[in-house]
Amino acid sequence: MDNQKPVSKHKHIVLTSHPHRSAQKPAIHWGKSDPIERGPIIGTLTNANQRNAIGTHSGSYAVYRALAIASGALQANHRPDLTNTSPVVRIGPHPSWADPDRIISLDPFGAIVGEVYTQFYEQGYDIRPTIAVTKAHINMPELLDEVAKGELQIDGKILKSNGNLVVTKVAIDPVWYLPGIAQRLQVKESDLRRILFQQTGGMFPELVTRPDLHVFLPPIGGITVYVIGDVEAITDPNRLLAVRIHDECNGSDVFGSDICTCRPYLVHGIEVCIQTAQSGGAGVIVYFRKEGRALGEVTKFLVYNARKRQEGGDRADAYFARTECVAGVQDMRFQELMPDVLHWLGITRIDRLVSMSDMKYNAIVNSGIQIVERIAIPEDRIPDDAKVEIAAKQAAGYFTPGEVPDAIALAGIKGRGLEE
Amino acid sequence: MDNQKPVSKHKHIVLTSHPHRSAQKPAIHWGKSDPIERGPIIGTLTNANQRNAIGTHSGSYAVYRALAIASGALQANHRPDLTNTSPVVRIGPHPSWADPDRIISLDPFGAIVGEVYTQFYEQGYDIRPTIAVTKAHINMPELLDEVAKGELQIDGKILKSNGNLVVTKVAIDPVWYLPGIAQRLQVKESDLRRILFQQTGGMFPELVTRPDLHVFLPPIGGITVYVIGDVEAITDPNRLLAVRIHDECNGSDVFGSDICTCRPYLVHGIEVCIQTAQSGGAGVIVYFRKEGRALGEVTKFLVYNARKRQEGGDRADAYFARTECVAGVQDMRFQELMPDVLHWLGITRIDRLVSMSDMKYNAIVNSGIQIVERIAIPEDRIPDDAKVEIAAKQAAGYFTPGEVPDAIALAGIKGRGLEE
Repeated sequence: MDNQKPVSKHKHIVLTSHPHRSAQKPAIHWGKSDPIERGPIIGTLTNANQRNAIGTHSGSYAVYRALAIASGALQANHRPDLTNTSPVVRIGPHPSWADPDRIISLDPFGAIVGEVYTQFYEQGYDIRPTIAVTKAHINMPELLDEVAKGELQIDGKILKSNGNLVVTKVAIDPVWYLPGIAQRLQVKESDLRRILFQQTGGMFPELVTRPDLHVFLPPIGGITVYVIGDVEAITDPNRLLAVRIHDECNGSDVFGSDICTCRPYLVHGIEVCIQTAQSGGAGVIVYFRKEGRALGEVTKFLVYNARKRQEGGDRADAYFARTECVAGVQDMRFQELMPDVLHWLGITRIDRLVSMSDMKYNAIVNSGIQIVERIAIPEDRIPDDAKVEIAAKQAAGYFTPGEVPDAIALAGIKGRGLEE
Repeated sequence: MDNQKPVSKHKHIVLTSHPHRSAQKPAIHWGKSDPIERGPIIGTLTNANQRNAIGTHSGSYAVYRALAIASGALQANHRPDLTNTSPVVRIGPHPSWADPDRIISLDPFGAIVGEVYTQFYEQGYDIRPTIAVTKAHINMPELLDEVAKGELQIDGKILKSNGNLVVTKVAIDPVWYLPGIAQRLQVKESDLRRILFQQTGGMFPELVTRPDLHVFLPPIGGITVYVIGDVEAITDPNRLLAVRIHDECNGSDVFGSDICTCRPYLVHGIEVCIQTAQSGGAGVIVYFRKEGRALGEVTKFLVYNARKRQEGGDRADAYFARTECVAGVQDMRFQELMPDVLHWLGITRIDRLVSMSDMKYNAIVNSGIQIVERIAIPEDRIPDDAKVEIAAKQAAGYFTPGEVPDAIALAGIKGRGLEE
């Protein structure tokens, strides 16, 4: 334990801070259209007096930031130099930004804090962007295959001859307005706060000790949005809009595991977005960090084993039961919070929703967005071993343009064994 | 706020629990080879008296679990039914499991708790697996392209004719032994605990109030391991082993963004693993959830904008400077903790390390693992816009079989503009 590095000098520990009159802490009035009236959301740790939120920035990466400070690699008082970082494309403001019920899990002004809160920066406030907007070229090998098959056309502007796809992309960190989250989930705010505290093993006592703080920056993964085509088309009622909401599945999205349809469906979603953009509309892919239905990958792999090993092997008629045995629920994704990002983009109508999920469909429609058409994954894109998943979901209420499998059909749809 | 659902009844809030004599809380003796002597790690919330760790299971997905309970979808006292979930392939025990310094960021017994702690389960303890081991077929379209080019061979067993690759895969949640983490980072444990508490915005007061609890389950993303070929070959000194350590980059890994080499290098790593496995050895891909050098994607996109907009455009000679301006550090990945998973697999020698990172190389070698050869990404796999990144890294100490670019060369390597 020699060679210890110098660490930050503030050794005074405040275990549970209590509200105190601080002229420095700006008030937050959630849902106001004027960003100054709404107030900046401050989760910085460089000046505790400025803080008006529970938790801090960067989701769970705050833990790595703490390690960097503990090891001496980062100064605790570092403030980002935000020169040149502002959004490459302007998104909003949209009428939904001023609706306190419509957006409760992200900060609509999160991308433009440097522009709307200049007077606060001048007074020394440390306000961090929670949204970043950039442009990129992406390239998925499947797209050129579809070009070769004649399913997709190179246009040289949206889709280039080398298969590069021009996109606007947006990273969004979660910002939760707790009264709104409670209302959305139909629980009392005090119950939500208590259970969030207790059922995370005691994360953030402020959830229960600081009812005056209404904004929570939860240490969870965020959202990435890919816009294909003209961003202006998203809100133009005369132009078509395609959308896919995709929840993370690292095993398929990156590695192409054949037990599910995640990557093939994502690729199909991008194709529909390209076609829609090429015809003058726009396409939006929203990628949520909710691995394994927000149960995490350890639980997911435990469920795979239980499915493959159960009597009779992996069967569509027992698909959800095994998840429920291990996790206690079939799904933990809370699609109720999902439409916020669509409202942030100003979406009021989706012409082509590339999803079969009834949970996603219902959440979007219930939030006031019209859905014109739902697009299923084409049959020939479903890997053999993923037929169990798709049939089970169709029987449970997923959208399908074809026949809904009955109990006999379900029992007959089987996956590969573990040792095959 | 009507229609409120019933929620859990335990409304008594313990803000900061203090050590109390509990016959139920098993002691942990980190680094013991006998799992009973080591003691089970218990982060359950179904019985607070059993807990001997700070935090809870499933990383940041604990927040979603709390939402499920708050909304009434999940019973707070649900215990997983672990029937049929045990590992499909046996890994370990290895001598490294009994070395308290070698593995400090995961629980070596995490996959086999159901087997080694039966006596605890019989007494009612709620012990959760932190590791899950399964088998899968994965399919990345690039692999069949390499087959067509003659770079890869179909063998029908490891790589099948439809491009399916047979793998053993392992999901690992973090389990941190705080005295070991402190020693690894060369800081005092009390400083580490204090800064972890303060610099996360006050997550887990137990870090400072409960020095008797030495194990922390941090709410961060975990690790996935893909083993290609015979798992036994990993520890057989007479058989070759290829390894790639890959840190998450969602934009490239999933979507193929051309600003970096992440997916192309990952694919090349898998190819080298296949070739090594086909010649009788094994290959290991380790995937860490450390998006954007563990800075998160919002920071990453802010840096992209700053790089592309700076005077002179995106340049290799200013590559690291822009990250440092925004984030305060060039990198936050803490490769010091990374080799633990290699020791968990029993690795003592890597014949082919598919990585150019000097940080990864040094961390692995310093942890006592021999590296025979380092394999760079082939020139023709580097996307045009990623040449800035590779040149900057080579100049900063990354391994390269070719020439290290000098200052003049660096200044001449430029990326695409934001509007191109």
